[in-house]
Amino acid sequence: MKAWEKNIRQVEPYVPGEQPKRRDVVKLNTNENPYPPAPGVEKARISFSDDSLRLYPDPTASDLTDVLADYYGLNRDQVFVGVGSDDVLAMAFMTFFNSDLPILFPDITYSFYSVWADLFHIPYERPALDSAFRMVKEDYYRPNGGIIFPNPNAPTSLLEPLSFVRDILDHNQDSIVIVDEAYIDFGGQSALPLLEEYENLLVVQTFSKSRSMAGMRIGYAMGNAALIKALNDVKYSYNSYTMNRPSLIMGAEAVKDEAYFKETLAKIIDTREEAKKKLTELGFFCLDSASNFLFVTHNKVPAKQIFEELKTEGIYVRYFNSARIDNYLRITIGTPDQMEKLYGFLERYR
Amino acid sequence: MKAWEKNIRQVEPYVPGEQPKRRDVVKLNTNENPYPPAPGVEKARISFSDDSLRLYPDPTASDLTDVLADYYGLNRDQVFVGVGSDDVLAMAFMTFFNSDLPILFPDITYSFYSVWADLFHIPYERPALDSAFRMVKEDYYRPNGGIIFPNPNAPTSLLEPLSFVRDILDHNQDSIVIVDEAYIDFGGQSALPLLEEYENLLVVQTFSKSRSMAGMRIGYAMGNAALIKALNDVKYSYNSYTMNRPSLIMGAEAVKDEAYFKETLAKIIDTREEAKKKLTELGFFCLDSASNFLFVTHNKVPAKQIFEELKTEGIYVRYFNSARIDNYLRITIGTPDQMEKLYGFLERYR
Repeated sequence: MKAWEKNIRQVEPYVPGEQPKRRDVVKLNTNENPYPPAPGVEKARISFSDDSLRLYPDPTASDLTDVLADYYGLNRDQVFVGVGSDDVLAMAFMTFFNSDLPILFPDITYSFYSVWADLFHIPYERPALDSAFRMVKEDYYRPNGGIIFPNPNAPTSLLEPLSFVRDILDHNQDSIVIVDEAYIDFGGQSALPLLEEYENLLVVQTFSKSRSMAGMRIGYAMGNAALIKALNDVKYSYNSYTMNRPSLIMGAEAVKDEAYFKETLAKIIDTREEAKKKLTELGFFCLDSASNFLFVTHNKVPAKQIFEELKTEGIYVRYFNSARIDNYLRITIGTPDQMEKLYGFLERYR
Repeated sequence: MKAWEKNIRQVEPYVPGEQPKRRDVVKLNTNENPYPPAPGVEKARISFSDDSLRLYPDPTASDLTDVLADYYGLNRDQVFVGVGSDDVLAMAFMTFFNSDLPILFPDITYSFYSVWADLFHIPYERPALDSAFRMVKEDYYRPNGGIIFPNPNAPTSLLEPLSFVRDILDHNQDSIVIVDEAYIDFGGQSALPLLEEYENLLVVQTFSKSRSMAGMRIGYAMGNAALIKALNDVKYSYNSYTMNRPSLIMGAEAVKDEAYFKETLAKIIDTREEAKKKLTELGFFCLDSASNFLFVTHNKVPAKQIFEELKTEGIYVRYFNSARIDNYLRITIGTPDQMEKLYGFLERYR
């Protein structure tokens, strides 16, 4: 090893779900939305001024934060936007988790949490989900440097009720609690109404799932103005201009079309409930999903085998080779047509 | 202070140059390009598929890295792209500067360097530029945890020759040397030809200046494959999908149009040389710029006064209230028309 190589940071990189370039793939592996973004997004793209690209974007991203604040009934100083919720969450780890006490998150959860904690040298502990993959609230009653969990959780798809979130907050008035609501629009109740009562609560959401804009990279955090200011201070000191001009303009249009949003959600929820029935008939046990994916295990055939055989057929789902969940598959809810192709193939395992 | 507030990171945020919403401003304060992006960028925008936005972008950003690699005669595994060169540089600080020895950069330079070093708890020392604002190469002959400098330097506009960069590399075989070439296309010689000889060299460039795409947020680093892999590993562990789909497609088109690129550069360089003459006539001393801005001081009137009076007139330039440079102005090269407005106003100080 050369001397200069010693100063290179060693990380175990997160491996994202595959993004195959083949177009004929039935892509149910990264929880994308099967429907296009709201029509206003196209209109905003078409009327976009290319000449404006020579200028830096608005560092405060006000076009987008104002629309989000309006939509959620918040003040504009209560909203922070970033390059996908991964950027927002990583920034939140850096901003809020600076204690010597460990932060807490479940053992089975979004796999980026431990990666960020390692990257930023943040100590952490991972209380185990119970045997039904539920969070045990009492595990979060101990001294800690912060708490983060997704609701619904991923990859389990399970939702905790608002009373659960409130209980965690009631027992943690001394640390910052982040609720990662990437999938909340698919049937959960957001923790947003708790913002007025709990000034140590940060709620994070994304445009990647319910708003069909994974390719645009937009995420956002909502909380009291002091938390949002702290996030912005770190952002400004890291990269003042993270959101490019097309994101600011096209993102705002996506939020404005409430009717399209509700319609798309309803379609996905319908397909999910249908999928739950079909997959159960086909020998799968499905956890009770409140998201745009199902977390399933088959009563005879190992998940890894199904995963590989589906892939050969051009049907991509997600398999995690991790303790406790290595016999499960995470299946994104696609269009009814895509799901029919999936059911057709799965018949062989019945 | 509440208990949870104690864990919030305290930072001194970087203050970016103003981005006024008024459209009648003569905006010479953030080194943007006065000409629009290459015509191919518009074509790529118009033919962009909005439906594709529902899918995550390619995490390897290969559409863009391949075009850049072709353009610079490198292999694709020698190019890393990020959300502006600020994102690339911050990622490079996190990836490469992990020594107990201080990193080195000039006392007068891009002000983000010290902000990132503070943010990531990286020790640093800032050797002083000499009285002519030149780097003193011998100051970089001591043990260090890494070196970074812009060439041309900002805000001084001064270029160091390739022999200077080579000398720094020859004396620093044990640490990683980053040359930040945000302004290199405006008349400097890039350190890229040194990549074959020095595997500890990283060259960083941007689309924000010479390619007229500050609003799109695209920067890139070039170096040996081991350095680029290390950057990607950190990126994948931070946010796998930083570059949105429009950036990847529109950015690639900007690189492909060499003729437009050269033509735009020639216009800006012409205007700069003219500006140097005019401003000298008007009583300014101008450093010898190899960039798209001038760093100037007036023989009678304090810089701060000129800055404020220009602003009242709707002419924005940059003033840094910092030791040694608080009697200088940084003036971006605009269109000839914009510059005429500037000269006209400056007549009063003659």
